[in-house]
Amino acid sequence: MTRRLLLVGIGSGDPDQLTVEAVRALNEVDVFLVADKEAGAGRTGTGDLVALREEICRRHITGDGYRIIAVPDPPRDRAPMADGAYGGEVRDWHAARARAYARVLARETGPDETVGLLVWGDPGLYDSTIRVVERVRASGEVDLEYRVVPGISSVQVLAARHRLVLNRIGSPITVTTGRRLAADVASGADNLVVMLDGGLACADLPGDDWDVWWGANLGTGGEELVSGRLSEALEPIRAARARAREARGWVMDTYLLRRR
Amino acid sequence: MTRRLLLVGIGSGDPDQLTVEAVRALNEVDVFLVADKEAGAGRTGTGDLVALREEICRRHITGDGYRIIAVPDPPRDRAPMADGAYGGEVRDWHAARARAYARVLARETGPDETVGLLVWGDPGLYDSTIRVVERVRASGEVDLEYRVVPGISSVQVLAARHRLVLNRIGSPITVTTGRRLAADVASGADNLVVMLDGGLACADLPGDDWDVWWGANLGTGGEELVSGRLSEALEPIRAARARAREARGWVMDTYLLRRR
Repeated sequence: MTRRLLLVGIGSGDPDQLTVEAVRALNEVDVFLVADKEAGAGRTGTGDLVALREEICRRHITGDGYRIIAVPDPPRDRAPMADGAYGGEVRDWHAARARAYARVLARETGPDETVGLLVWGDPGLYDSTIRVVERVRASGEVDLEYRVVPGISSVQVLAARHRLVLNRIGSPITVTTGRRLAADVASGADNLVVMLDGGLACADLPGDDWDVWWGANLGTGGEELVSGRLSEALEPIRAARARAREARGWVMDTYLLRRR
Repeated sequence: MTRRLLLVGIGSGDPDQLTVEAVRALNEVDVFLVADKEAGAGRTGTGDLVALREEICRRHITGDGYRIIAVPDPPRDRAPMADGAYGGEVRDWHAARARAYARVLARETGPDETVGLLVWGDPGLYDSTIRVVERVRASGEVDLEYRVVPGISSVQVLAARHRLVLNRIGSPITVTTGRRLAADVASGADNLVVMLDGGLACADLPGDDWDVWWGANLGTGGEELVSGRLSEALEPIRAARARAREARGWVMDTYLLRRR
């Protein structure tokens, strides 16, 4: 028998950012699998994210005919490392997560059940869930079919809040990570969306040459926004970052950088 | 008095792709302004897009306490032109559109009314509505405040349907246009999302070096999907493009290109 899996993008925190399609998908789910980061990786501040996710379910799911299974998240080494080592480390972590999911799917879900995975933002953008599910399928441990429901990404909320068009007229956007920022700028990118940047890599660029539109915890009650010339915006961004972390126990930020 | 404007992203065609926030915004609107492309630019196939938009309103708006004003769209020269001329031509067109909107806002809407602009996809991604509204504000003809509601872009539907993660692990995505594709590839981009490409610019790349994931009219009943090695996918894409146009009278496509 083939289990049916729904990967549902749930936006970046605001329950109103779910699409009608996502709300319908949530209501088809019998079992939600949620990564239990607290049990696995010992990270702080995730209790608030769990509460946000529960608020989304409470707001949108009619009835209570579903159950939730916490899957312990394998520990992940987040220490700085060389670029070459990074991909391998991520792949090891995907493999460990896939083993954990396969085990739970086989032992704790029925073959006629619909299983839901909630994904912050959009499953197609800097998220590992699709890759992990493909590994579960490849393992042969459980038969799976799955469907992906797109969600609003934090980048889109950033653009909406700053009333930005992410591209200049007829020009490209480079979507990248903090780790890659310097290399992408060196190869000529002058209009960049930066994600997964815990360390404000933009601080190493010449601050008078760039404008920045920055946001943290977008879509939540503790949302922070800063924009301006990079050289003048960095300190306000650092202060806003600290406020966001203080308010919710975690901070996720993203920004657009544009060469002046 | 200051008019209140809502720019609402409505996804790429499927009424279920609207967010709960967008549905709520539609229900706050007294007057929708819609670009009347048929009257203005003499393009074909737009009747179907009007019908899709009306279906979205019918599905999501409770009651009938709103009216719709068609704003004749200024003609736009879409003939091929040099890159240098392109930006100027687009800016001229934005200016003409802004004049048409300012005139309608001042004459046909009340200062206490909420005005809605429906945007296909996401207002922050390769869309001109924000730029046009900023020009209306700058003109001083009407006082405006406005808010942007993000929407699911066709790129996100493309990723969901192909169950793609748009980025490779830790690597960038270049979002670009057909016009810019060759230049971006020449400067080293090897993972590109291509939008606004009416002429399949990817056909000029060495087809054995690239994989492609392509989609047209995503989210509509006439959706088409093709993926594979570019050299083998080009003919199926051309056939699917023709089918999509045949089915609905128009075709909008987007694709991910990844160097093998």
